Amino acid sequence: MQAATPTHPNNSKTAVVIYSGGMDSFTVLNRAIADGFKVYALSFHYGQRHSKELDCAASVCAELGVPHKVVDIRAINTLLAGSALTSDIDVPDADYAEGNMQATVVPNRNMILLSLAIGYAVSIDADEVYYGAHSGDHDIYPDCRPEFVEAMNTVSKLANYKEIPVRSPYLYNSKDEILADGLAMQLDYSNTWTCYNGREKACGKCSACRERLAAFAQHGLTDPIAYE
Amino acid sequence: MQAATPTHPNNSKTAVVIYSGGMDSFTVLNRAIADGFKVYALSFHYGQRHSKELDCAASVCAELGVPHKVVDIRAINTLLAGSALTSDIDVPDADYAEGNMQATVVPNRNMILLSLAIGYAVSIDADEVYYGAHSGDHDIYPDCRPEFVEAMNTVSKLANYKEIPVRSPYLYNSKDEILADGLAMQLDYSNTWTCYNGREKACGKCSACRERLAAFAQHGLTDPIAYE
Repeated sequence: MQAATPTHPNNSKTAVVIYSGGMDSFTVLNRAIADGFKVYALSFHYGQRHSKELDCAASVCAELGVPHKVVDIRAINTLLAGSALTSDIDVPDADYAEGNMQATVVPNRNMILLSLAIGYAVSIDADEVYYGAHSGDHDIYPDCRPEFVEAMNTVSKLANYKEIPVRSPYLYNSKDEILADGLAMQLDYSNTWTCYNGREKACGKCSACRERLAAFAQHGLTDPIAYE
Repeated sequence: MQAATPTHPNNSKTAVVIYSGGMDSFTVLNRAIADGFKVYALSFHYGQRHSKELDCAASVCAELGVPHKVVDIRAINTLLAGSALTSDIDVPDADYAEGNMQATVVPNRNMILLSLAIGYAVSIDADEVYYGAHSGDHDIYPDCRPEFVEAMNTVSKLANYKEIPVRSPYLYNSKDEILADGLAMQLDYSNTWTCYNGREKACGKCSACRERLAAFAQHGLTDPIAYE
């Protein structure tokens, strides 16, 4: 993959990137590399149905030569019961909309993942944490909104001896715009996984698939992954 | 144990209390009860040498009739390598002082524990999270300082559909003053554990033991637990 023009050039710094294996965080990972960071990818195994994401993440990191850490946080599910993404509740077949998608909300998810990523950054003496909040999630998920990201950035600069800024490069961009940046970086999205259902092929029906398909359609492109 | 006069009376609310089994969080637990909260105790098994703390916590919660959740977060130690509290580095035999005690710092510890406690609070529909930062730790641990606690409180009110305030009732008190409040609540400290070394009896030499012994001496009392 070819690096595009840096938007935040920094050749001597290191960033931990929260990388799920999905298309947004795949773009964030490549954005951090394009920005000149030495990157450490961090994925979480939280018992997601769509663990194919993690296979994609491992394969992409191997290809890019990026160190990749997968941390198993399934033990904390006993604390956070009730989400469709980690339990037996059915994933809604619908576009995202407040109400029917609250079933997919894991309590305090992003604060937990960011706090672990910040701890990892401190332990390897990294300088920043990148993660992929975007404007499409603002209405539904409080922990994807700019005020949350700002507040996490503030607390992250106070919590350790070293200040670790939290950077969310697509905070004000739509999923469609994230894809546009990825296409400008000439990224190949065939090794990303978005579907909430963990079957062999993507379902094409869950809200995550619908959003993804809509983003490719917006660019007049066909999504390179296989659908049922 | 007898409830003292509430400082923050609230008879209809529920609090998650981060409760290690040590004397400070034992006092916080009882303070929350005295303040009128229905309390859910939360302990973390992070591979501490002093896991006798957890035994104390379980026994106290059973005695108080408080629901007690212990969550095993040892899997995240692969992220947070290098602390004396979870690894084979020797625990310093000395009073706390910046420099020699940085070896006992777990990267981003309190943000991680608080983020999990906040997630737990959301999942059980609790109203607040209590934890025991105190002034004696301000110099050494950034994540025990008032500005950190304030910032966590801010982000915790933004991260979920429900605002979960983070309350640290002894934030501006010394360990000695925490003990004073516990004594005013007529608490029995024989079922608390503080020593960093996980042996049969407390060592009396590590910095945690020294602080604890000094707090009892300050009140002209003998610590009720057994020392080597």
